[in-house]
Amino acid sequence: MSRTFNFSAGPAILPEEVLREAQAAIWDFDGAGIGILEHSHRGGPFEKVVQQTEASCRKLAGIPDDYAVLFLSGGASTQFFMLPANLLPDGATADYLVTGAWSEKAVAEAKRYGRVHEAATTAATNHDRIPRANEIRWSERPVYAHFTSNNTIFGTQWTSEPTPPAGVWLACDASSDIFSRPIDVTRYGVLYAGAQKNIGPAGVTLVIVRRDLVERPVRDLPTMLRYGTHAKEGSLYNTPPSFGIYLMGRVFEWTLRQGGLAGIEKKNREKAQVLYDALAATSFYSAHAGEGSRSLMNVTFRTPSAELDAKFVKAAEAAGFAGLKGHRSVGGMRASIYNAFPKAGCVALASFMQDFAAKHG
Amino acid sequence: MSRTFNFSAGPAILPEEVLREAQAAIWDFDGAGIGILEHSHRGGPFEKVVQQTEASCRKLAGIPDDYAVLFLSGGASTQFFMLPANLLPDGATADYLVTGAWSEKAVAEAKRYGRVHEAATTAATNHDRIPRANEIRWSERPVYAHFTSNNTIFGTQWTSEPTPPAGVWLACDASSDIFSRPIDVTRYGVLYAGAQKNIGPAGVTLVIVRRDLVERPVRDLPTMLRYGTHAKEGSLYNTPPSFGIYLMGRVFEWTLRQGGLAGIEKKNREKAQVLYDALAATSFYSAHAGEGSRSLMNVTFRTPSAELDAKFVKAAEAAGFAGLKGHRSVGGMRASIYNAFPKAGCVALASFMQDFAAKHG
Repeated sequence: MSRTFNFSAGPAILPEEVLREAQAAIWDFDGAGIGILEHSHRGGPFEKVVQQTEASCRKLAGIPDDYAVLFLSGGASTQFFMLPANLLPDGATADYLVTGAWSEKAVAEAKRYGRVHEAATTAATNHDRIPRANEIRWSERPVYAHFTSNNTIFGTQWTSEPTPPAGVWLACDASSDIFSRPIDVTRYGVLYAGAQKNIGPAGVTLVIVRRDLVERPVRDLPTMLRYGTHAKEGSLYNTPPSFGIYLMGRVFEWTLRQGGLAGIEKKNREKAQVLYDALAATSFYSAHAGEGSRSLMNVTFRTPSAELDAKFVKAAEAAGFAGLKGHRSVGGMRASIYNAFPKAGCVALASFMQDFAAKHG
Repeated sequence: MSRTFNFSAGPAILPEEVLREAQAAIWDFDGAGIGILEHSHRGGPFEKVVQQTEASCRKLAGIPDDYAVLFLSGGASTQFFMLPANLLPDGATADYLVTGAWSEKAVAEAKRYGRVHEAATTAATNHDRIPRANEIRWSERPVYAHFTSNNTIFGTQWTSEPTPPAGVWLACDASSDIFSRPIDVTRYGVLYAGAQKNIGPAGVTLVIVRRDLVERPVRDLPTMLRYGTHAKEGSLYNTPPSFGIYLMGRVFEWTLRQGGLAGIEKKNREKAQVLYDALAATSFYSAHAGEGSRSLMNVTFRTPSAELDAKFVKAAEAAGFAGLKGHRSVGGMRASIYNAFPKAGCVALASFMQDFAAKHG
């Protein structure tokens, strides 16, 4: 059966090769006569899966040994409070760059633990862009500087990391663009991502954290909420989301086969260019995100009216393009074209867009 | 390819019918041309999955409307602190029945929030039995009474719920025997289980909680840690472990096809009887768990020596029986025979046990 062009914002499309591997592994993993879902997390075969997933992750992103690579659960929403709970002392300040709904949620949770300074916000223009460097007002001595590297809902993306004051580490929610391009992990203290967009299924969270930070939590916490618990036990303190870890490993290997992060970035740029070119080719469409802030992962756009937007989504669905309806806070359309999304889908959508504009423009 | 008899304590064997359904759904779910891993949690197809999983769960266990059915993550280890964080006020007391390593962990986390009274413990005899009713010393006015319905490591199981003082609700970690027999949910305030033994894969936790308790949390907590957050949003506050929820729904439907909880209990009793009969047939083997406390889920036993135990595990592995090594705190062997484990595997193991005893006895 042929598969639909799936523009879902997440959970999102996965590489077909990985899906085929998963189908086989569910019945029998590694010739053991036991499926991947059924293997003990304490047994040799699964321990090897965890080790390989971590090794592939380190290779893919060039993660040095002084960083722990953790496979947790609860999504970015859990990291919103787990990060400050572990690392923001009472009375200390963390700086947050507010570029969308997810940044706002991260701010709300951090406020339970310490002071939050909003170093910049783009709320005034419904988060249609990334703040310019000269708009950012850092606080005196923040513990860390938090940003959301890609804003799924608004279709904006940082082209490079913000530069906090000297000695201040970056914290980042990279859920919707993790491993879509090369990254210098050493600028980060904590880098986290729900897997369900670029690196796997829903239900597993990748957390990359500097080991020296893990070793000095700022308050006593339940065992499961301490980064140190999971770092010490190699993500096997309790039964982990084992299938998610397996699948993430398969996606990392697939990404390496695409030429690693440099290779995948090239493909992502080509794919996004096809859609941004289609937007620029006619005045019928307008992009939500401003130039210089446009995401390579989520392309947000609209037609001249909400009625035509609805018509577009319906006609696209009928033509085999799924998941194009924009988030309610932005309206219009959103084409999510994560790593695994094929260029052929972008080309087909661009052609559909051209036809739709010709018919309704 | 034929599958191994998998006695893993968890993640554990799943029904073959369910694995076959999952294999197909990974490529294409419901004819949409999109796999189950790739469906948006906000889209119609997945919303239907959540609704159906909840409906099957309610039907299977007779769960009334005044209970919320939540699909969370983080396993029972997360519930160890989430339960008292939500429901044990500062200075108040909860009673815990300590029957093994998992009960002890639950106690340790609860102590962060309130007072813990150990109403009974079987630690003195390495948790080889369940406390008798006349051994239990309840505190004056506990908020709740917590127990572990089945002790995976030790192979003991409560034959029926403990009876706390009038007006006190039960809290239960049912991870390793959930839905293995009929249950009267109305005796419980909170019933929780990691899915990976009887009801699904690792990475999703079932929490059944009385709605009036959800509506009165005793302290302010991060959004993700409040039962109320997930109850209000039907487990869709954030991106949930979607594949785990799907698979759990398939397992619930499979369990209904086995005759529901009464039907599955009958099968479980027959399966366990085969192994306990094999133990009783010779003085070569001894059971860890005392009579009257023996689990239908995990059968723990040993040979006359640690050397023979090791030989048994190795020979069994070679004969196609996987996962029989006992937990290090008990030693010997453990045969985990959850709902999905076939009776044929118990019969085959009993025969192997007889042969091994004849050869080495």
